Amino acid sequence: MNILYAQSGGVTGVINSSAYGVIKRALHEKSTEKIYVARDGLNGILTDNLFDLSDIDEQKLEYLKGTPSSAFGSCRKKITSSNEKEYLDKIFETFEKYKIDVFFYNGGNDSMDTANKIYNHAGNISYDIKVIGIPKTVDNDLYGTDHTPGYGSAARMLSLYALEGSLDVRSMARDSTKVFILETMGRHAGWLAASTVITKLSNNIGPHIILVPEDIFDEKHFLEKVLYTVNKYGYCSVVASEGITYNDGTFVSDMGYSDNFGNKQLGNVGNTLSKMIYNNLKLKVHTAVPDYLQRSGGHILSLTDVNEAVLCGSSAVDMALQDITGKMVTIERISDYPYKSAFSNVDLSDVANNTKLLPKKFIDDYFITDEFIKYVQPLIYPEKTYTYNQGIPQIFDIL
Amino acid sequence: MNILYAQSGGVTGVINSSAYGVIKRALHEKSTEKIYVARDGLNGILTDNLFDLSDIDEQKLEYLKGTPSSAFGSCRKKITSSNEKEYLDKIFETFEKYKIDVFFYNGGNDSMDTANKIYNHAGNISYDIKVIGIPKTVDNDLYGTDHTPGYGSAARMLSLYALEGSLDVRSMARDSTKVFILETMGRHAGWLAASTVITKLSNNIGPHIILVPEDIFDEKHFLEKVLYTVNKYGYCSVVASEGITYNDGTFVSDMGYSDNFGNKQLGNVGNTLSKMIYNNLKLKVHTAVPDYLQRSGGHILSLTDVNEAVLCGSSAVDMALQDITGKMVTIERISDYPYKSAFSNVDLSDVANNTKLLPKKFIDDYFITDEFIKYVQPLIYPEKTYTYNQGIPQIFDIL
Repeated sequence: MNILYAQSGGVTGVINSSAYGVIKRALHEKSTEKIYVARDGLNGILTDNLFDLSDIDEQKLEYLKGTPSSAFGSCRKKITSSNEKEYLDKIFETFEKYKIDVFFYNGGNDSMDTANKIYNHAGNISYDIKVIGIPKTVDNDLYGTDHTPGYGSAARMLSLYALEGSLDVRSMARDSTKVFILETMGRHAGWLAASTVITKLSNNIGPHIILVPEDIFDEKHFLEKVLYTVNKYGYCSVVASEGITYNDGTFVSDMGYSDNFGNKQLGNVGNTLSKMIYNNLKLKVHTAVPDYLQRSGGHILSLTDVNEAVLCGSSAVDMALQDITGKMVTIERISDYPYKSAFSNVDLSDVANNTKLLPKKFIDDYFITDEFIKYVQPLIYPEKTYTYNQGIPQIFDIL
Repeated sequence: MNILYAQSGGVTGVINSSAYGVIKRALHEKSTEKIYVARDGLNGILTDNLFDLSDIDEQKLEYLKGTPSSAFGSCRKKITSSNEKEYLDKIFETFEKYKIDVFFYNGGNDSMDTANKIYNHAGNISYDIKVIGIPKTVDNDLYGTDHTPGYGSAARMLSLYALEGSLDVRSMARDSTKVFILETMGRHAGWLAASTVITKLSNNIGPHIILVPEDIFDEKHFLEKVLYTVNKYGYCSVVASEGITYNDGTFVSDMGYSDNFGNKQLGNVGNTLSKMIYNNLKLKVHTAVPDYLQRSGGHILSLTDVNEAVLCGSSAVDMALQDITGKMVTIERISDYPYKSAFSNVDLSDVANNTKLLPKKFIDDYFITDEFIKYVQPLIYPEKTYTYNQGIPQIFDIL
């Protein structure tokens, strides 16, 4: 068996843990001959740029589990109608050259769409290859799986950020900053922002308002809630998904505010809300935009997330050995406390064509219900951090 | 002995560790009668709002060490020429009411100025009280001390952020984002931004450019360096202090960029640099602005920093017992590897009137010299994190 593994889309803290799961399982499988990993995802397959890890040192491999971001490089490339023939021809040329028997693609919605197109093409040309998707996204918006590797670690980090930012603004509020805003990723789904509701369990210090894209943003109602909170507690802590929209569907971050000359200002949602609050309520605001830091934060991964990511990788190899193809590995939740999960699979085409939004039952008037805590809390602990040498993280580095 | 302790200025991850040092040392000193802590710093003293911690449960107190932000509330209030008489009268009224023998003020430059004015006023009116400053600031810009409690933990966090952001942009650079910018605090001093140079020791992945306020910012030279780096490595990771300025002294963040109508845009320095790069080089940029998160990040404190903060607090009590007044506790470095330090003190007036900038010898063409690594590395490790219960930090909460 010759396998090819590739990473795709925005990175996470544990995508390399899935790579570790694939490689480790394949190394210990007698039928494995070659283990290839594409450099920069689809790019490496299109340009014949592969790492051969068939003889990788297993001690070095251990560092891969827990090194954040895509250790082999990722990509945003997709198969579209305009490049489909060219790309598929080149991809199968590479498959042919390296006699690939199984192709693992580790990514999100777009990546599963790509994997599905490769799977369909193999069927069309009767090419004998197994195509298996491995889930990955901090956004947690993949269909068919209870949750996605990468989400638990990002949720852990954001809930700590929300607590720490709330503690900070509470400290300063007597005669300085009154409002703290934490902007999270999440253009269409609010899972990341919602995760910060866990912070309630730390003495209810904040956040007080959580804005998700699944809810409609109304400026007047938002400002009323901010003012009510500041009057009640002396400060207000807000978490906002980058993708929140007005009733008419326009992004809040795109509306912006006008400058003194009447020209529309563009900016991120944190800054937009900040200006909104300052202009209307004259309250001092601080805004944190963690951006990449929330998805590549290897210093406080969730070990539950790391372990599940590894198992998604090894399960994918097991599926290949059982001649399964055209499927993505999924995680099924068995119980919350104590947390238990199992692994199954779903059609790539179903993942490619669906987005899993935050259900309405978890959303309540610019906040998140307690019921959601049961969903997210088991995913965020215990902690896994780097192996440090005098404060310096030891990482896997092949690029 | 009756003591009064108060916190002031922007918070840190370890200011409560100094509070712990003061309270713990005082609890175990026979001559101690009352231990008061002001709510919201100077505000609590002006409005007679004090916590009486004379009988605090020592088990509960342990949580104070490692709880970030000001557990008792902080303030931005200063004694100025316009409020001096009113404030000093009220402060000494509170001192009189509670028969305070020692006043500890835990803060930065402005706070030491306030402490110094209180010390001078006590002398002027022959009031018998000892006034002792305890250093605190993530900015590390206090005169007379090798470094400041709070800095080591913020440096630890920012160096991890710089590594993780660099890993992320490196992963994505093949067909997406080419430049990552991390904006750090530091309006006048570049110690925080400079600390990210440690990241060099993690396989030299980034940052490639570090901008500090002590260096003059030149747009052309900056863009040349970004382009050179992207051409050489495929991506570029930039760390920028919020307070970088042009040759004429204006803040880069204040210059902004003009919109299509020729109107000046205002924004933070990260966004300003981002627009500069996009407009001139047409490269996709991601910007992270950790803001409060870099100074109140209790989840990855430096234990060296925590321990020194505790010892600054207990040393302040020792100084009071030795009838020392009008001084701030200082840290003296004995050796780098293994790291050893000792405690001494300096006149409050010297701290109040000086700012310790990053020496020129550490700055080299939009980067930081290797010599600086020796200064900062011993301060950032080992790690101290929260005590967690199912992923939830256990914190000290009295507000």
